[in-house]
Amino acid sequence: MIQKVLFFAAILSTVFFAQAQPGDAAIIKKIADEVLINSAAYNNLRFLTKNIGPRLSGSSNAQKAVEATARMLKEAGADTIYMQPCMVPHWVRGAAEKGYIKLADGTKYNLSLTALGNSLGSKPGGVSSEVVEVSSMAQLQQLGEKAIRGKIVFFNIPMDPTYVRTFKAYGEAGIGRRLGPAQAAKYGAIGVLVRSLSSNVDVYPHTGATQYNDSFPKIPAVAISTKDAEWLSLQVRKNKAPIAWFKTSCKMLPDVLSYNVVGEIRGSDFPEQIITVGGHLDSWDICEGAHDDGAGCVQSIETIRAIKALGMKPKRTIRAVMFMNEENGLRGGRAYLQYAKDNKEQHVFAMESDAGGFSPRGFGLDMSETKRLKIMEWKTLFYDYGVYDFAAGGGGADIGPLKELGTPLVGLVPDSQRYFDLHHASTDNFEAVSKRELDLGAVNMTALIWLVSEYGL
Amino acid sequence: MIQKVLFFAAILSTVFFAQAQPGDAAIIKKIADEVLINSAAYNNLRFLTKNIGPRLSGSSNAQKAVEATARMLKEAGADTIYMQPCMVPHWVRGAAEKGYIKLADGTKYNLSLTALGNSLGSKPGGVSSEVVEVSSMAQLQQLGEKAIRGKIVFFNIPMDPTYVRTFKAYGEAGIGRRLGPAQAAKYGAIGVLVRSLSSNVDVYPHTGATQYNDSFPKIPAVAISTKDAEWLSLQVRKNKAPIAWFKTSCKMLPDVLSYNVVGEIRGSDFPEQIITVGGHLDSWDICEGAHDDGAGCVQSIETIRAIKALGMKPKRTIRAVMFMNEENGLRGGRAYLQYAKDNKEQHVFAMESDAGGFSPRGFGLDMSETKRLKIMEWKTLFYDYGVYDFAAGGGGADIGPLKELGTPLVGLVPDSQRYFDLHHASTDNFEAVSKRELDLGAVNMTALIWLVSEYGL
Repeated sequence: MIQKVLFFAAILSTVFFAQAQPGDAAIIKKIADEVLINSAAYNNLRFLTKNIGPRLSGSSNAQKAVEATARMLKEAGADTIYMQPCMVPHWVRGAAEKGYIKLADGTKYNLSLTALGNSLGSKPGGVSSEVVEVSSMAQLQQLGEKAIRGKIVFFNIPMDPTYVRTFKAYGEAGIGRRLGPAQAAKYGAIGVLVRSLSSNVDVYPHTGATQYNDSFPKIPAVAISTKDAEWLSLQVRKNKAPIAWFKTSCKMLPDVLSYNVVGEIRGSDFPEQIITVGGHLDSWDICEGAHDDGAGCVQSIETIRAIKALGMKPKRTIRAVMFMNEENGLRGGRAYLQYAKDNKEQHVFAMESDAGGFSPRGFGLDMSETKRLKIMEWKTLFYDYGVYDFAAGGGGADIGPLKELGTPLVGLVPDSQRYFDLHHASTDNFEAVSKRELDLGAVNMTALIWLVSEYGL
Repeated sequence: MIQKVLFFAAILSTVFFAQAQPGDAAIIKKIADEVLINSAAYNNLRFLTKNIGPRLSGSSNAQKAVEATARMLKEAGADTIYMQPCMVPHWVRGAAEKGYIKLADGTKYNLSLTALGNSLGSKPGGVSSEVVEVSSMAQLQQLGEKAIRGKIVFFNIPMDPTYVRTFKAYGEAGIGRRLGPAQAAKYGAIGVLVRSLSSNVDVYPHTGATQYNDSFPKIPAVAISTKDAEWLSLQVRKNKAPIAWFKTSCKMLPDVLSYNVVGEIRGSDFPEQIITVGGHLDSWDICEGAHDDGAGCVQSIETIRAIKALGMKPKRTIRAVMFMNEENGLRGGRAYLQYAKDNKEQHVFAMESDAGGFSPRGFGLDMSETKRLKIMEWKTLFYDYGVYDFAAGGGGADIGPLKELGTPLVGLVPDSQRYFDLHHASTDNFEAVSKRELDLGAVNMTALIWLVSEYGL
């Protein structure tokens, strides 16, 4: 009986879930072989990270990365390569940051710290005051102005280790970095220390953007390593009355002109229908931005390279986009939408890879249920390449603005266990990327881009 | 209509595929939280790799690892801890190996090399001769004695990059390392160079065992880095008439006494039914053996720790085993079977983790179809912890001998993309292991071990 039912269930699956053609599997195998043998992604990433390095928006390195990826898109065989100008913030870290904790007993402890992105520098002599530790925004509110005024607030909000999907832990714990300085300033704090958003206890400070509120003073703010955060919290619990001192020299300079870089293969049958695949070209200034998001850029370029190398003629236009300024402004993503509207472009699909160059596991699908079911029909084609998880929701920051046009959005979902070991920290370097993992991501991205270009949604 | 069928299919799945109880998911969540918050695996691995280091069978470090893991099992709360004596080979590398290539034009190129495990040293002055490159055993045979006698054979068999499952590529390309020296000797070769079994082109030589044939001379044999292999092959193609010289000082000393280390939680209802979970304690001498297989050892210990920490009372006996001598003899695995037979033990299930401490993706199931289907009923319980692939076949080298008893065997299947970047090379160190990936493997191992202990197969 069970066997009969199993057989029946198998028939059902075949009819209703797996509408892919036998030829599709063969084409995807060709794509996979091409990428796994000849991929240029790893060498392109080496160039972006080792020859150029950190690529913060507005920096000369960001401009070098614009030029380098335009060249890479040309080498990949894109039909058309162009740049989309956009003004971007120009935040600079300035002179070396430093800070320490002094305890009541005279002990001095140097902090491993880094200024938060978009934060402004302290006065030249730095800021110094007692430390008030909070583990949530609610606790900050509860303490209120009386406890906070004139103090340095220490947001000690660890990432929850029990979330297997680490981005969820990042999203929750990240409130301290994103809104902490503005909220602490509201209650009169003079500076902020934030526990780094790292999955583990280690010695690296992790930067990332904070968002001031124009109604309150813009106080200096730094992230400290999780190891230092654990130590500092212990001193607070032991009533050691820690006094923090730190100094930062960051500045926000006037906006500068920068670019999204675009490379296209024009569609043979429906050239007006645009499929976007992209990553962001800018990175934080304290790291090589290998996983975040050099990986997404070179994978997107690889999509173009593989399709051209195989002599495939996509029916719809495939456009690889290197977005500028995801980290501290999203100006590139917004400009991309504006160009789309100005030119009345038809954006039928957009994919982003901005969760690291790790082994792929799935796609996050942000689109109507009908379109999602259509993509789910292709699910079995990806299994042999490590992708099995097609969950609702996802996309990516840079393609997010396209939602206004109703564009179906997809985000590559790589394994996320290692991402927050290195995210926005000096450890996000080329050596942390595995060639095969990076390439396997590109295999799955190219396969889905090709299916959409062939069949539409 | 489609919706109706989908609904019907969903009912079918519920009834026939997912027999797990609602309570099981809650218990597995408890296991996951316990491991992800309190795991001792990473710190135990740090001790094995950093405080002890390489642990080749017969070395004093291997003995230190025996003592250290006995202590770790005690700390984990095992009821009973004991050692199973077994004699192991005692191979030593001896003085530093070295070698170079000289071309017809006088160019000298130093090789990055390492002697193959179990190989014997060259004569004191080293071996030197023309290089004959082959890319397969068939080609070696075809060339025969006339072309091979007196020469140094260069087995240049790359791992096939198009296999997403890298172990398949390792298995195929590995014939050169495993059997190359014996086969080359058969045709009169005086030495062997083997292209390292590495997924990528890099500078690290990867060792590993070779198997001499007593009918032929035991000639010296080394692995060279894939970068050197690419270079050497190019010189051969350019007719540069490369001459190789290399020197090794390896020796096989008399067998020494060593141990498997065992820690048990005695089953409450069926103590005679034994469930084994293990990894191997020995490693190659040129690396810390973090992924291979310190990871499997500390994950197995973590299984005991988590179950005890949660106060769970398994119905069947759970036994964590640190097997000795997987790398160059498998004496520990064979001894384990012999003890089982001598003591008429009932081995109802065995699991091994020996494919690296990477993010888990599945289990390989080597057992009857009935038992495999039983495990498949639990499949959905693992999805949230990253494990979705339950394929037939697998197990592990050390638990392999238990097959003689009909024991169902399971191997943890972690993501395999990075494994052969570092397997048997100096890069297999503690820094290459991610705490979260390691722990997530332990979560899934503990969950399956617990289900089997609760329900049997």
